Order: sequence, then structure tokens, then C-alpha cells
Amino acid sequence: MIWLDEVRAIVGAAHVLDGDDLAAYEQDWRKRYRGRALAVVRPASTQEVTAVVRACAAHRVPIVTQGGNTGLVGASVPDSSGTQVLLSLTRMNRIRAIDAANLTMSVDAGCVLQQVQEAAAAQDLLFPLSLAAEGSCTIGGNLATNAGGTQVLRYGNARELCLGLEVVTAAGEVWDGLTGLRKDNTGYDLRHLFIGSEGTLAVITGATLKLYPQPAATGTALAAVASLDDAVALLQLAQSRLGPSLTGFEVMGGYALGLVRQHFPQLAQPLPPCAWTVLLEQSDSESMAHAQALFEALLETALERGLISDAAVAASLEQAKTMWHLRESIPLAQSIEGPNIKHDIALPISAVSAFAASTDAALLRAFPGVRLVNFGHLGDGNLHYNVQPPIGTDADAYLREFEPQVNTLVYDAVGQFGGSFSAEHGIGALKRNELAQRKSAVALDLMRAIKHALDPLGLMNPGRML
Amino acid sequence: MIWLDEVRAIVGAAHVLDGDDLAAYEQDWRKRYRGRALAVVRPASTQEVTAVVRACAAHRVPIVTQGGNTGLVGASVPDSSGTQVLLSLTRMNRIRAIDAANLTMSVDAGCVLQQVQEAAAAQDLLFPLSLAAEGSCTIGGNLATNAGGTQVLRYGNARELCLGLEVVTAAGEVWDGLTGLRKDNTGYDLRHLFIGSEGTLAVITGATLKLYPQPAATGTALAAVASLDDAVALLQLAQSRLGPSLTGFEVMGGYALGLVRQHFPQLAQPLPPCAWTVLLEQSDSESMAHAQALFEALLETALERGLISDAAVAASLEQAKTMWHLRESIPLAQSIEGPNIKHDIALPISAVSAFAASTDAALLRAFPGVRLVNFGHLGDGNLHYNVQPPIGTDADAYLREFEPQVNTLVYDAVGQFGGSFSAEHGIGALKRNELAQRKSAVALDLMRAIKHALDPLGLMNPGRML
Repeated sequence: MIWLDEVRAIVGAAHVLDGDDLAAYEQDWRKRYRGRALAVVRPASTQEVTAVVRACAAHRVPIVTQGGNTGLVGASVPDSSGTQVLLSLTRMNRIRAIDAANLTMSVDAGCVLQQVQEAAAAQDLLFPLSLAAEGSCTIGGNLATNAGGTQVLRYGNARELCLGLEVVTAAGEVWDGLTGLRKDNTGYDLRHLFIGSEGTLAVITGATLKLYPQPAATGTALAAVASLDDAVALLQLAQSRLGPSLTGFEVMGGYALGLVRQHFPQLAQPLPPCAWTVLLEQSDSESMAHAQALFEALLETALERGLISDAAVAASLEQAKTMWHLRESIPLAQSIEGPNIKHDIALPISAVSAFAASTDAALLRAFPGVRLVNFGHLGDGNLHYNVQPPIGTDADAYLREFEPQVNTLVYDAVGQFGGSFSAEHGIGALKRNELAQRKSAVALDLMRAIKHALDPLGLMNPGRML
Repeated sequence: MIWLDEVRAIVGAAHVLDGDDLAAYEQDWRKRYRGRALAVVRPASTQEVTAVVRACAAHRVPIVTQGGNTGLVGASVPDSSGTQVLLSLTRMNRIRAIDAANLTMSVDAGCVLQQVQEAAAAQDLLFPLSLAAEGSCTIGGNLATNAGGTQVLRYGNARELCLGLEVVTAAGEVWDGLTGLRKDNTGYDLRHLFIGSEGTLAVITGATLKLYPQPAATGTALAAVASLDDAVALLQLAQSRLGPSLTGFEVMGGYALGLVRQHFPQLAQPLPPCAWTVLLEQSDSESMAHAQALFEALLETALERGLISDAAVAASLEQAKTMWHLRESIPLAQSIEGPNIKHDIALPISAVSAFAASTDAALLRAFPGVRLVNFGHLGDGNLHYNVQPPIGTDADAYLREFEPQVNTLVYDAVGQFGGSFSAEHGIGALKRNELAQRKSAVALDLMRAIKHALDPLGLMNPGRML
């Protein structure tokens, strides 16, 4: 095959894999999608990417770009046709430069997020993007999907942490937009168009990222609240008292923490079971004493106002880690409990409580016995609103039968409350039909016009998003 | 003329102006561009805008959209052909809704920025976008140009303050992207494409804006520094000590403040003349006492380290206003001094000092006697790096002869130091040639492909930007 020979010549035969053992590349993280790649190609540089993309364009070979392959919507694995090349960028993992005075870092797209965080920390700086997969996801994937995570409340999504971008276009040319500028109004913002486009417009090969000074201290606390309304009121109070120092505001439903208690009994839970538990995180520029004093004053006011019934402030880094560990254990506890239906949704924060009340009730009416596992980044209005089949049912069979109906009910409700059916995970293959059905015709027309303009051959991650 | 009749029927004859006295619409703020409109059309609603745009598309009438007409690059006035309609959105000035719990506000595009700020303040909330023209510029114009201003260091540009957008496309359809969501990964980010596109892709008719809690106290200080290097070191120290509480970091060159001293002798200058004066602003979530204590500790450390030679902390709101007034008087003092050549540039903060040293010297070599008026938003790497003709020359004649050469020297240097030739003012008509010459062919091809895809008839603000 001519294409294969060309690509071997570009990246070296050792970096073109077409054997049988490609499961690590062909299967997605959640094991919902298993495709078959024409080959796995692993370029080492932006120049190699341009040459591979040109060879693919010449031979009309579709390209699926993959970073750490930790995406949750099937956007980074090939389909089952065996015609799509899997372009893996993990060999491109160089920290290109750190400019401490400019608070920026330039990196290859294949750098693992944790590697980026650690490179910043080594200079006493902070790269705040943080999410569960940080040990294996890549910054290119984070940008291609506009990843969210736990620090969005203060620092924004991946999009807001990127000042500049380098991409290889569908025509195999390099757009060098690797600026480290805070202000640059010279034409359309191409960066923001490529960020979040899930590999359907171009291949992200490098980025210039925003860094921040390391906070002097980080405070963490848990608070027990009786309702989502109270949780939202606590959020408002915390934002008013702490301003931008409030870096995390997570909510965990009682049932969700109950699953953690059941499946990880060794994990200490500082608060007794309650309807909702809020995890607050504060990053302080002054000192730990200052952070704790502010936190204690905040929680005291919240107690006085009846917004919370109980609270625990972490007295050590270890206690703080335990609190976060509780939050992070919910998805695992869910998995152990069995297959479930996940919804990564966002709502106006003012609508979160009414949405949950209405949708909980509608779900329980329509699907008696389902268990609602609700948790997430309340500070961003982002809920992981998951549905566990009734106890005693065959979960796989239940999902096969009811998942589409459950999704329709939930996403219809999300739309009614002005929300989004994909807050931070993206569209990929999983929600492609939802996008087609739920976005307005005008929005879809605009997106398709852009797609056609920048990828006229339709070779960039076809079958995903649009 | 059929088109005119159609448009009169849409918005009412009283809101279609085609007399002789249209200077307020046809001349730009800096009086560099005076065009001639086919007519001025003043729709009252998004629906009227769609009908006007459709009528224009049907009759191939180009559209120049205008808000407060305070832009600095000639993007919001018609050309001299008399064929372009001036679409003025100032009648669309409704605050649509404020959602305090979600910290968002939805507004018509024609709302004046100050009106938006005041609507937020009335709910004890903050809309932080702030710039000199805030009393007359509109939020639609702010978004179409991605305005910057004095609070970018903490809150970002206009782009970062916008969660959702409503636009009328070139086809006369409404894209309702008025979401108030912090996370929404459902397709390409159309919002960021329209923001900063200067009316060349669509008409922005509404927006959902981010709000913040009002800070408990705002501290302001001036500090005298000997060099830009020291100013950058002070910035790093302030960022490390104050974190996100540092909301403003402006620099003013000695010559710039000298012009203020000369032309506004009644304005008290708290510090004696020095090479550079920095204005620091801090927004504190706790109290004025806390803000001042942090400020004093910061400035004490800076004094000890020899970064600053003198400082003054505002003891009252009035003193703070005086400090800002000094900063804001520089452009006026420059105007009184006479015509000058303005450059709105951005650099990596780490490159600001070397850029200025090198470019100052090159300018003085090439254009003996020119006076360098350098000031701006150092915290964002954004300098207003202006050149005043030599004393005693005919400034108008000097500009006619030398402005293009001065621009070339400055923008070449900006490029060499990794900077931008338009930080916050945009491209418009003024810098269209610079864009064509200084952006890479790949970037220009991408922008033109997008322009053609979304505005195939080329009727949206032709002759600007691309």
C-alpha cells in the first residue's frame, strides 16, 4: 500500500503499528467503543505530523487524532471500518519552554497533563487544570475537548488556560499561533475555534499555556447541607466572602457518598451521612492561618444562617487529600456498583435545584426504583447526574432497554432549564445524535459551514461531533 | 429605491436616516475616517435586524454595524462610496435579565457599557469591563472588538466576560447562543468566533455576560520605579503576594506624565517626576484595612528590594480617583500636545523591557528628536507606545511624511519580540494592510475560508479586517 509506505518513510517503520495488538489505541477508556485502525502512526514532531496529514489527504485516508485516550465520548478511537488512521501524539511530549516572567509555558500536544503541572511546580508556578485522568491524559486532548475539572470556578476551562496554539491544518500546513500574549486582536480567534473541536478541524500539535503563582496555602473543608438550594446559597456566600480565592466548590449527593461508604469502607468520612455534602477549596495568597481563619468565619456564618448543619475544615494536607479522595471515589464506587447511565450536564446555577427536583421526580415516575447518583462541580453548574438501575435488576439488560429513554428524559429537562447536555466531556461519537437533534438548525448550519471550509475533504475525525 | 422602502417598512421611516447631517454616524471617533452612508438604519429589536439583513442580502447592500462609534481603527463607519448601510444598534438598549444566583446578565447589544456596569452595581454585583469610552461605547461594540481596558489582568478581555451571544447571521437568521453556562462543550465555540470579528461575520444583537461579587474594598497605589525591568519585577512580586486580588497594573512613562503635568497643572501628582510610575489596584474580598495592610507590606518589600524608590497608597476613594485620573489624562495631554502616532501593541511581559530599550533607540536613531510617550496596561503586556513628532516641527506634515515608516519600524520590532501589532483596538480599516502583511499565509487562508463560509456574499463590513 503506497500510503503505508509513505507514512513509514515519514515517521519510521517502528512508529507505524498495524499488528493485531492495538487495543490500547482502538478501545476507548469507558470500553464503549472498540474500532479497528488502518494503522497507528506515532509522529515525533510537528513537521512529521504535517507530512502524515498531507499523505492522508493525498490518499483520502481519514485521521483520528489521539492523545492519552482518556476521553469519555468515543472521540479518540477509530471506527470499525479499518480505514481510519489513528494518529497518536504521545511521542510529542516535550516541554518546549517556560517563561516565568510572562507566566507562560509552551508544550508539545502530547505532554501528559501531570507532566505539565509538575514542570510548572518545579518553577514554583501553577498550571491549574486538574482532572481525574491527569496522570495519563494529554494537554492536546485537554484542549481538543476543552476539558473542565475541579478548578474551573476560579481558572476556567482548558480554553481559558491557553494563550496560543500550534495546529496542523487539514491541508497539512502549520498554523503557528503560539503566542504568549494576554491581548491580541488581530483577526478571528482561530485558537478558540480549534479548542473544543475534537480533532474535526485540525490536529493540535502544541500550545502556550497560562501559568499562575502558586498559592501560599490551600484550605479544604466539607459542609453538610440539607438541600441543593442551601448548597447554592452557600456558594453565593462563599463567593462573596472569598472572591477569587474560592477555587473549588463540589457537591456530593447522599446516595453517591453512600456508595463510597459501602464500597470503600476504609475511607474515613469526616461528616455523618446527610442529604448533600459540599467540598470547598480555597487558595490563599497569604498563609494557611489566613486561609483557615477565613474558612472558619465563612462556615460559622453559614451555620448561623442555617445553610449548613455541620462542617469539617481540613487541619492538614492529608486531611484535605482525604476529602478530595472521597469526591474522586464516587465514579469508582459507581462502577463497582455496576453499569449506569451517565450524564455530564450543565445548568445555570440558579436552575440547578429546580432542575434536580423536577427531573428526580420525573425519573422515579418513569423508571421506578432507579437510583440517582448526583454529584459534580456545583460552582460551575456542572452536575454528573447519573442513573443507576434499580437494585436487583440485570444492569446490562436494563441499560440496553432504558438508556435511550432515560437520556431523552434527562436531556429534554436540561433543555427546558436552559442547560447543556454536554458540559465538559464533549460530543464525540456518543452524543453526535444529541447534537444533531438538540442544537438549533442555525447553529448546526454555521458549524457545518466552518467544518466544510476548513476540512473540505472531510478527513478530520469523521463521524465525530458533526 | 426598493431597498430603502423595504427597510423603512421594517424599522419605521423615522428610524431610517438619509439626510445630510449624519456626521455622528459617518465619522469615526479619532476623526481619521469620514464616510458616506447609503442610509442610517436604527432597528429596535433582533427581529428587525434579521429583516434588515435579509433585505440587504436580497439587494446586495453591504452592512456596517455600529454601536457607540468609539472604535479607534475605523471599523464602524461606512466607506466613502455611499453604498454601505450604517446599521446603528443604539436603540436596542434593554437590560434583558439579571440572574444574581447565576452571576449573569443578558443584555441587548446596544446597551452602553456604563449602563451595564450600573445595572450590575444596582444588584451589588460587578461587571468588570472598564475602559475610557465606557460612557458611550456599547457592549455589542465591546464584544465585536474584544475590548480590553484596565481590568484585564484579573478578569480578562471582553471575550472572557461573555458566556453567551445572540447574533444575526449574514443570511439574516438568528443564532440564539444566549446561554448563561460556565461549561458547555456542544460543538464549535461560535461565540468566540463572532467575538472580535468586528462585524465582518454577523451582527451581534445580544449577550449574556459574567458578573462578579462586588469587592469589599479597592486599594490603589502609585510607585516610582527606575526602569521597565523593575516594573516587571514589581508586577511579579505583586502577583505572588496578592494573587487574583491584583486587578490593575498600569505603567506610565516619565515623559507621558510630564505631558500631563504640563497640560493639566491643576492635577496633583502624588509622586515627584521619575522614570516610570506604576499604578497598582487591588480588589479585596475582606475589608479596606486588609487591602491597605497587604498593599503596604507589598510596597515595603519592594522598597527593601530596591524595586521602587517611592510610593503613595491612596487613603481615600478620592485619592484613588486622582491616581486613575492621572493615568486617564495621558491620551488627552497627548492630544493637546498635538498630532501623534499611536501604537496599541502587546508583548510577552518578559520581553517588554528589551523591546522598549531596543525600539526607543532605533526610533531615536531613525527619527531624531521624536518624543516617546509610553504607557499602558503592563500587567497584560499591553503598551500604548506612541510617538510624538519633534518639538517645533509641523506635526501634521511630520505625520504625513513619517507615520508609515515609524509604523513599520515599530511593528517590525514588535514582531521580532513575539508581540502583537494590535493588542486591544483591533484591525478595522486602519490596520488592514498590516494584517495582510504581518499574519502568516496560513492564518490568513484560514480566516478567509471562515469569512467566505459565513458571509458568502461579502456584505458584512467589507473593507475591514480581511
